[in-house]
Amino acid sequence: MPNMRILNFKSDNEAPAHEKVVDALVQANDGYATAYAADEWSLRLDQAFSDYFETDVSVLPLATGTAANSIILGTLSPPWGAIYCHPNAHIHNDEGGAPEFYTHGAKLCPVCGENGKLDAAILDETITQAGAHGVHNVAPAVVSITQATECGTAYTADEITSISEVAKKHGLPMHMDGARFANAVSYLEASPAEITWRAGIDVLAFGGTKNGAMDAEAIIVFGNRPDWLEGMHRRRKRGGHLLSKMRFVSAQLLALLENGLGHTLAGQANLKAQKLAKELSAHQHIALVWPVEANEVFIETSEAMFQHLEANGVAFHRWPGYRNVGRLVCSFQTPDEAIDALIHLTKTGP
Amino acid sequence: MPNMRILNFKSDNEAPAHEKVVDALVQANDGYATAYAADEWSLRLDQAFSDYFETDVSVLPLATGTAANSIILGTLSPPWGAIYCHPNAHIHNDEGGAPEFYTHGAKLCPVCGENGKLDAAILDETITQAGAHGVHNVAPAVVSITQATECGTAYTADEITSISEVAKKHGLPMHMDGARFANAVSYLEASPAEITWRAGIDVLAFGGTKNGAMDAEAIIVFGNRPDWLEGMHRRRKRGGHLLSKMRFVSAQLLALLENGLGHTLAGQANLKAQKLAKELSAHQHIALVWPVEANEVFIETSEAMFQHLEANGVAFHRWPGYRNVGRLVCSFQTPDEAIDALIHLTKTGP
Amino acid sequence: MPNMRILNFKSDNEAPAHEKVVDALVQANDGYATAYAADEWSLRLDQAFSDYFETDVSVLPLATGTAANSIILGTLSPPWGAIYCHPNAHIHNDEGGAPEFYTHGAKLCPVCGENGKLDAAILDETITQAGAHGVHNVAPAVVSITQATECGTAYTADEITSISEVAKKHGLPMHMDGARFANAVSYLEASPAEITWRAGIDVLAFGGTKNGAMDAEAIIVFGNRPDWLEGMHRRRKRGGHLLSKMRFVSAQLLALLENGLGHTLAGQANLKAQKLAKELSAHQHIALVWPVEANEVFIETSEAMFQHLEANGVAFHRWPGYRNVGRLVCSFQTPDEAIDALIHLTKTGP
Amino acid sequence: MPNMRILNFKSDNEAPAHEKVVDALVQANDGYATAYAADEWSLRLDQAFSDYFETDVSVLPLATGTAANSIILGTLSPPWGAIYCHPNAHIHNDEGGAPEFYTHGAKLCPVCGENGKLDAAILDETITQAGAHGVHNVAPAVVSITQATECGTAYTADEITSISEVAKKHGLPMHMDGARFANAVSYLEASPAEITWRAGIDVLAFGGTKNGAMDAEAIIVFGNRPDWLEGMHRRRKRGGHLLSKMRFVSAQLLALLENGLGHTLAGQANLKAQKLAKELSAHQHIALVWPVEANEVFIETSEAMFQHLEANGVAFHRWPGYRNVGRLVCSFQTPDEAIDALIHLTKTGP
Repeated sequence: MPNMRILNFKSDNEAPAHEKVVDALVQANDGYATAYAADEWSLRLDQAFSDYFETDVSVLPLATGTAANSIILGTLSPPWGAIYCHPNAHIHNDEGGAPEFYTHGAKLCPVCGENGKLDAAILDETITQAGAHGVHNVAPAVVSITQATECGTAYTADEITSISEVAKKHGLPMHMDGARFANAVSYLEASPAEITWRAGIDVLAFGGTKNGAMDAEAIIVFGNRPDWLEGMHRRRKRGGHLLSKMRFVSAQLLALLENGLGHTLAGQANLKAQKLAKELSAHQHIALVWPVEANEVFIETSEAMFQHLEANGVAFHRWPGYRNVGRLVCSFQTPDEAIDALIHLTKTGP
Repeated sequence: MPNMRILNFKSDNEAPAHEKVVDALVQANDGYATAYAADEWSLRLDQAFSDYFETDVSVLPLATGTAANSIILGTLSPPWGAIYCHPNAHIHNDEGGAPEFYTHGAKLCPVCGENGKLDAAILDETITQAGAHGVHNVAPAVVSITQATECGTAYTADEITSISEVAKKHGLPMHMDGARFANAVSYLEASPAEITWRAGIDVLAFGGTKNGAMDAEAIIVFGNRPDWLEGMHRRRKRGGHLLSKMRFVSAQLLALLENGLGHTLAGQANLKAQKLAKELSAHQHIALVWPVEANEVFIETSEAMFQHLEANGVAFHRWPGYRNVGRLVCSFQTPDEAIDALIHLTKTGP
Repeated sequence: MPNMRILNFKSDNEAPAHEKVVDALVQANDGYATAYAADEWSLRLDQAFSDYFETDVSVLPLATGTAANSIILGTLSPPWGAIYCHPNAHIHNDEGGAPEFYTHGAKLCPVCGENGKLDAAILDETITQAGAHGVHNVAPAVVSITQATECGTAYTADEITSISEVAKKHGLPMHMDGARFANAVSYLEASPAEITWRAGIDVLAFGGTKNGAMDAEAIIVFGNRPDWLEGMHRRRKRGGHLLSKMRFVSAQLLALLENGLGHTLAGQANLKAQKLAKELSAHQHIALVWPVEANEVFIETSEAMFQHLEANGVAFHRWPGYRNVGRLVCSFQTPDEAIDALIHLTKTGP
Repeated sequence: MPNMRILNFKSDNEAPAHEKVVDALVQANDGYATAYAADEWSLRLDQAFSDYFETDVSVLPLATGTAANSIILGTLSPPWGAIYCHPNAHIHNDEGGAPEFYTHGAKLCPVCGENGKLDAAILDETITQAGAHGVHNVAPAVVSITQATECGTAYTADEITSISEVAKKHGLPMHMDGARFANAVSYLEASPAEITWRAGIDVLAFGGTKNGAMDAEAIIVFGNRPDWLEGMHRRRKRGGHLLSKMRFVSAQLLALLENGLGHTLAGQANLKAQKLAKELSAHQHIALVWPVEANEVFIETSEAMFQHLEANGVAFHRWPGYRNVGRLVCSFQTPDEAIDALIHLTKTGP
């Protein structure tokens, strides 16, 4: 039986951080630094991300993606707002009600679509019908998409633009949950600008933790929105997310941006997932549930096969809400031998 | 063209109050009375409703059903709770986010079912699957049903029991939104006890306003739950619903209970709706959307017919979320001539 | 022993409503009326109060003053706001945390001053020092005063202006809790305009219930503030305060305005309090705690005297936070014989 | 002019982390680890802290003290609760309203006392008088103290016990904000047990960040309280504080506990503060505001002296709410030469 620790396909957040991120963090531990994100590392973030996105942005570093998404939504939506997202959205299913907490009770309204992506036409119809009864209804407030999606696919710039146009038509801002943003950039071979502000995104939760960091995420606000920034800074403090020694978060973010490290790591993860998907889909009893575009592979197979894999030390998630669907995630750290071992196991399985 | 005011089928809350309710309120205006629900009228409520329900209950009077439902849900659900209700539920669609406000952000989770009623099997499966990911998911907290339902139907005692059994199996309390409770009692020819606590209901929002009162609702807690009562009393005050001169609300509730006035009025309203439904369903271009059991008639017909009715002064609601569906509501005050005039209009329509 | 019911000096909210208010309510029960404050009575409020205040105002009727104050504060203050008020303020001490609920956690910051009135200089210094540490502090958000005050005094127009000037200097809006607004108007012989918008008040919680109504209060917004109104309408619904049959609240408010009924009743209440104060202060063992300007008399006397009064059926409040202080409130209904009996009792006491 | 960077007396959270903490973090970056605090480091915390406290405790690691305090208070207090703390308390002044956010609007009620410590007698009287008006008042809910205090003093075990006895008498739990817990332990030469659970503390926010960590704090629950733990786990997730790679936080905490590293570092910081205090207090124009017991020195001196120090590169905080008071903080990293340079500057000053 292969080493169980290397057969870990549970999540990219179970992988270790990249050594360059760790190095950056160690180097940031040099002498005194102003507390509460007024240190030199944190102060460099606006420029570093403005370069990355080819436009002026404002950046708030913090330690978790749940906090980033929730602080953004709390700022963009009033407590009586409706936030439109895919039924599979992480903010809807996996954050324990954090968006509801930070928005003081906004309602997350699922809008369907193929492959984990909102359907622009359904979105338009949904928003058009909403709010017909004035204060008796919650008020349309935000459209939220995830890039890469929770189904492991990536929105093209055109797809995002179609959705943004619907949002803008109704006067709503666009939020992007970018927990796996680098994986989408890598797959699409698009620039970060193309799939964000140029496609109508207003605020991005930029993910570093799944991309090789220890605990580093950032709220990226495109354009000049002092009103939003005030609300975000207040909510970050009020939520307990203004780390006193923020330099250690910011240094990680800077490391990911330097020389495209984050993109490199995401590309490696994607490549591993592609390889895994190709081999698995060749198995006669295994089907891919959704196109594999980022670093996640969703497979549908028999219960016997799942049990066979589990019995042999493969760690992965049975996907909630679906029958006989499992999720396998690759990171830049996933060893090729783990992929080979997994493939081998499927061939010797039931 | 008939008098527009008598062709009002918009809602039972547009009808005037019954004269006996008004008399009770005028009589309550006699001399001094202790403030904040410690007056003699309010103090009689526990006994009066205990008699009505044939068991010991605790009663909190207040002025709106939205407040009653929301205070109950805020007490039964933690902020990270999941509240299961029908997709058509008033708490989900029509209260402007009040339940989310009073629960500090709980999530309302729709559970489908025919004719506005939760399906017990779907409910069981939904709760069973929920919460699999621990704190990442919201926690199953409350099952909420509406009696009579938002589709104008009424749950039988057996139907309620089936749902309650699922709730109890999962350790969840049962809430009943009884905005039109008397209409259900009247239709079912059941005792109030049979379709509440004997069928597993833990807390009821008892509706008076649509039943002939001016503004009188009550939270009814079955059994001995001092912990819930503490939370409800605190939330009623904190929500601004502890009226200083509560006697005027409580006197209305007592009037509805006296000599079965509420049941009588609900019976009259139901009868009118039955008559209306019977006649309308005989029309070849009009269909009933759901069985007419309480005092609401939902019809599906052509856009031309709806416009014809509207042009002739019939007031009713186009039902949101459905195409070509209109809702016609009767109250004890609906004149027979209004019903006749409406029927006549459909016959002379397109 | 005199009739205990007529020796009630506990609160003006224990008195019955005035018959003209009751008549108005009965008359409003005529036929159908559009629900949710779109009825003809509610629609007349903007004009009626604009006439009353000699300027354009927007009015939201509702049933309790706690709700009025809290909805206003929730609109004017962000969740991280500081609301400056007198240590004795009703919003700070007596609303069970309702302002904190509707603001989602704003902080009420006491600012001292004589006779229940904020001291403008202390207020200025307090606000100037607040917020020095940015997001680590709560942000100055609202200045709130009560008219008449919780000590039974009334702010003059000049006093209000001094406070408003401080608020405006710091960019903060002014809220007035007017639970006993008519008593202040009557005492000051000022116009409603002079002691509100002309003195810098932005939003008033207008009290009807203590002024002879059953349950009728109103949010009065001075000037053109569509942003505030949107927030207030949403919060009124979300708080469960949008009564479906709002006509019954609005009719009461209109009755109070008609022919100056509210002012007349407040004048009567004040006069009775003046008489009571004059007689009590002549007693060698009784002292007035604060000047008696509205309808409340605060006395300091011996424990023996308080027990003597209580033993003889005088109902009043021992005032929390003070030793040997009792509050006696008069309403337009307080019988002269009750005042005489009370005076007599003090003379025969210990 | 001396190097400005070494004259940093602003806060212990501007100092770098200790190298052993950094080493522990680097070593934790080894291979895969289960996400969301189910990793081996996090799983060792309960035992490690149970050894440290000589009793069974439950531990929730997280990244900030503001979050730790707020999650605790949100669990111990209902939304309508009163939390008693010193007027100088960090939770009251410096967390931007985070406790109000996590409690959904509880009220922080200042209770005075010398040297930053609650006075047990005043506390008793305050709680006794609170809540006299039932739901109209907020409900006494929690007593919170800070160890070491915000004035740089430390509660003795007896002092804590006196306060706890008052709290228990009123049925309230005790919270300790231990941002500088190790400094108090070191000063008092007490065991961690003596000044926590043995003295009546129920829950501790254990501070690591100011004690040499990068970003590591912990909620410590004494005794067997599954109800509290459920609420804390839910709130940690819902607040966005359940880091996916929690191992990096937990490894820091373990490093601080190992061989008493945290105590050693706190002892060094205290010693430096003692030296600084001794020398400064010998200056004829400088007075110590409070006894120097932990690692903070509060001095009162002339504006000219403060400006002299600032002009020469000494970084410190002018203390808000006081005139001519400055705070100087030492950490284990404060160089002796910085202290010498500061002393020298005061002697050459105005």
